[in-house]
Amino acid sequence: METKVNGLENDMERLKIQGPTNPMVTPLLTDQYQFTMAYAYWKAGKHLERSVFDLFFRRNPFGGEYTVFAGLEECIRFIANFKFTEEEISFLRSSLPPTCEDAFFDYLRGIDCSDVEVYAVAEGSVVFPKIPLMRIEGPIAVVQLLETPFVNLVNYASLVATNAARHRFVAGKSKMLLEFGLRRAQGPDGGISASKYCYLGGFDATSNVAAGKLFGIPLRGTHSHAFVSSFMSPDEIVDKSLHSSNGSGTCEDFVSLVQTWLNKLQWTSSLRGIFGETNQSELAAFTSYALAFPNNFLALVDTYDVVRSGIPNFCAVALALNDLGYKAVGIRLDSGDLAYLSCESRKFFCAVEKEFGVPGFGKMGITASNDLNEETLDALNKQGHEVDSFGIGTYLVTCYAQAALGCVFKLVEINNQPRIKLSEDVSKVSIPCKKRCYRLFGREGYPLVDIMTGENEPTPKVAERILCRHPFNESKRAYVVPQHVEELLKCYWRGGSDKAREELPPLKKLRDRCMQQLDQMRPDHMRRLNPTPYKVSVSAKLYDFIHFLWLNEAPVGELQ
Amino acid sequence: METKVNGLENDMERLKIQGPTNPMVTPLLTDQYQFTMAYAYWKAGKHLERSVFDLFFRRNPFGGEYTVFAGLEECIRFIANFKFTEEEISFLRSSLPPTCEDAFFDYLRGIDCSDVEVYAVAEGSVVFPKIPLMRIEGPIAVVQLLETPFVNLVNYASLVATNAARHRFVAGKSKMLLEFGLRRAQGPDGGISASKYCYLGGFDATSNVAAGKLFGIPLRGTHSHAFVSSFMSPDEIVDKSLHSSNGSGTCEDFVSLVQTWLNKLQWTSSLRGIFGETNQSELAAFTSYALAFPNNFLALVDTYDVVRSGIPNFCAVALALNDLGYKAVGIRLDSGDLAYLSCESRKFFCAVEKEFGVPGFGKMGITASNDLNEETLDALNKQGHEVDSFGIGTYLVTCYAQAALGCVFKLVEINNQPRIKLSEDVSKVSIPCKKRCYRLFGREGYPLVDIMTGENEPTPKVAERILCRHPFNESKRAYVVPQHVEELLKCYWRGGSDKAREELPPLKKLRDRCMQQLDQMRPDHMRRLNPTPYKVSVSAKLYDFIHFLWLNEAPVGELQ
Repeated sequence: METKVNGLENDMERLKIQGPTNPMVTPLLTDQYQFTMAYAYWKAGKHLERSVFDLFFRRNPFGGEYTVFAGLEECIRFIANFKFTEEEISFLRSSLPPTCEDAFFDYLRGIDCSDVEVYAVAEGSVVFPKIPLMRIEGPIAVVQLLETPFVNLVNYASLVATNAARHRFVAGKSKMLLEFGLRRAQGPDGGISASKYCYLGGFDATSNVAAGKLFGIPLRGTHSHAFVSSFMSPDEIVDKSLHSSNGSGTCEDFVSLVQTWLNKLQWTSSLRGIFGETNQSELAAFTSYALAFPNNFLALVDTYDVVRSGIPNFCAVALALNDLGYKAVGIRLDSGDLAYLSCESRKFFCAVEKEFGVPGFGKMGITASNDLNEETLDALNKQGHEVDSFGIGTYLVTCYAQAALGCVFKLVEINNQPRIKLSEDVSKVSIPCKKRCYRLFGREGYPLVDIMTGENEPTPKVAERILCRHPFNESKRAYVVPQHVEELLKCYWRGGSDKAREELPPLKKLRDRCMQQLDQMRPDHMRRLNPTPYKVSVSAKLYDFIHFLWLNEAPVGELQ
Repeated sequence: METKVNGLENDMERLKIQGPTNPMVTPLLTDQYQFTMAYAYWKAGKHLERSVFDLFFRRNPFGGEYTVFAGLEECIRFIANFKFTEEEISFLRSSLPPTCEDAFFDYLRGIDCSDVEVYAVAEGSVVFPKIPLMRIEGPIAVVQLLETPFVNLVNYASLVATNAARHRFVAGKSKMLLEFGLRRAQGPDGGISASKYCYLGGFDATSNVAAGKLFGIPLRGTHSHAFVSSFMSPDEIVDKSLHSSNGSGTCEDFVSLVQTWLNKLQWTSSLRGIFGETNQSELAAFTSYALAFPNNFLALVDTYDVVRSGIPNFCAVALALNDLGYKAVGIRLDSGDLAYLSCESRKFFCAVEKEFGVPGFGKMGITASNDLNEETLDALNKQGHEVDSFGIGTYLVTCYAQAALGCVFKLVEINNQPRIKLSEDVSKVSIPCKKRCYRLFGREGYPLVDIMTGENEPTPKVAERILCRHPFNESKRAYVVPQHVEELLKCYWRGGSDKAREELPPLKKLRDRCMQQLDQMRPDHMRRLNPTPYKVSVSAKLYDFIHFLWLNEAPVGELQ
């Protein structure tokens, strides 16, 4: 197992001091049954038995064939600070039956995660069903208390990171993607987590100021419709002066300069007939916004009518700014036919560039932001559009197309005894044993297959033939000769000791890893329509063992 | 306007001390553009202009015709504590363009909500599209900063409360509904908010311990599959003794007592052939759980096979407990055909009651908890089932059927000037003016219609004929003679003064209000299939004004 020791003390220090991003993530953020079980384990003298649990999901979300793993750092922050307060202990005492013995609460009082080990896939990795994202080992009563918060912290993080990656895939690498979802997110840290993990999954910036502060994510945002309609007319603008960009002079009446440009636009032959009188409250709002942010003028142009009011008003202000040496940033479209309106806007900008000889005006930025999702991005691409940046909210952050990922947390071994969980539904049978997991890469550099083995089986070797079997379907198997082998599960927590533990990289690095991993995938696994499933397998030895255990545990039926 | 003054000081005190439930709800939990706009308002000298915003939604969720309003108390807690820290101010300074003037940050430093007023519908009320749930008045720069957090706090709260109410409607009043969603919720306080607002919407209990502690919601939970598979066989149980319920004696070997009952069950004529050898790890787990919680024995019976293992094992333990004077609570089914399995379980329990003369054994509690939602509850009802309690997780808390409610926050007046936001989509045109809203009730006690009027129009009077108009469709109008009139928007925040302010009732009271309001609705608005839309209207005077303003603001087209 690869290990890194450098810088770990600082890393540990950071985790211990910071704790989980959300202070509500406490040892009580778990299901009541984790405490009733803890009591029953304790009462049976089983609470210290060494157990191994796998955290995994069974199906990729959004009808796709891949998932981005996220949420690991928050899990580690949580266990690094895992300790009950006296207040929590007394609440637990009151919420459990009065027959529960005092000594149990003394036991709870003493619990921390110094006996726990966490192995995990690197955060930001591309992952697949059935392969453990995390393997958690420790005293069974303690590890079960971690189940609910771990699953909670990983489920949504991975889901929304995957959603972001899918939006990036459709939008293409050249577009700017902005996460605008805070107001529609499922609660305050639905919003904050969304901003964090959308950035990890490939977004460029967020509108969420708190997330910008917490995680250093670039912030974006200009103004809303309310700003536009809060103005009545340019007459109300009192301070009309604006210094030129290089400080060489001052325009004393920027409002008149804008009006002059609006008149010129109106009488420009190539624009004639497109618009008549534009909305005056909008013109006032744009002018005011430009006076406040002459270097950052980006205007929302659809409050009244994009083509007949918003675009001409925007261009008049942008041209006035240009006179003073400022370069406008662009427009935002928030309603209507975005393909059509973006093309019309582009035409208008190009006509302005040509008519008035303003270099670069035709390349003015166009942001679109109206209920976008994978489907609308795809449709826009097919229709042709002129949008440079997409602001995406509701569908992205609430994962509207599939609002939950089904991560589970299953016991696979206790006291060195492998355990299996059966089910009438084969896809719900768990894969027993403490396992190692590898990703095998083919000649072209693509990952070919993930394989799980028993803990003590030899590591698959490069250029050696390995039999990979479907865990439950005996006829599905293949020999693979890997060109490169990567072990997936590495140690991220070893009882609080900083020996031989992986670093938790900063968010920007997780994002880079995610981008790089997505790039590395074979394209047919990534496409939106009928993607090829990526293969997940077990070793021949593990296969045999699963089926031995299965037969051993399942009751034999009697048909009558 | 109705007002209550009693107990308000304590109420205010509570809010001021506690702040928002989630400490991450700070003034930075907003969109970046609220700050760029604040700067532009400030720069234009407009920041103190008195503005009125409406918070409302445009469409009921889940294909239904009603919504439960929730999230108000969190909004009020937020503004009661609204104040920037120096650290936040310096972050804002670094995130805004360097050209922003220092004096603006001094202004931000001084901001609080002492100039803000909030009017709202009572939390837990049944509400409808277009009617403001909240009306927020104050200096425009401040009120805009509140937009994102308010919409965030209301959107998910109302969505998940509505989802809970819909699940309650399908399940019926006699069933116990348990919220089990924490692990699948969208982040930690997705989970905590879900527990709170599902309780408000009619659930009885939650598995979420943190929510139990924060809000006093009853907690439920017993054990998981992992608990069952962590045992190997009854041989490993060391302390086998159990006192009888009344303390009169002790059974020294409860494990053998259970085994005796299992043998008896196997040789009972009416149960013959149903099961052979049951799973020993399951039997050990059930026995251990009963030893820990003899008064609260509820077992998860589907780890191996419900009918051939789980139910017989459960009954053996329950009968052994019965010998000692304890009454088992019941079983939980977490997979398979819940209708069939619950009926088979019930049959088994009734046979046991009859064969062994254990009164009430046939009425043993049956809880079901496998990926339940409105549809599966409905299907179970149609098939017939024997479930007493439903544990509902993923579909409930993530609002899987519709993961977002589209609450918006629109400027309706500034400096006493009504404002309108136009859109190519009529349903997106906002209703201008500072308004009053009323619910008019008919003869049978059902609400008939909600009506919005201008602020200074007379209050609709009982027994007087009132013309109610659709806000945008001129042909839709009706005269209503109300038997009872309720004003909907009441004052919940008046700049921090506790004069004439509504109380914020505790969660249990919000839940009662919600239940009572849902009961009061005409059944055809509530049904799942093709419900009748509830009518939302404006006064004749407001109708005329909307259309005057609309024509005034919209640019006139020129077809060529």
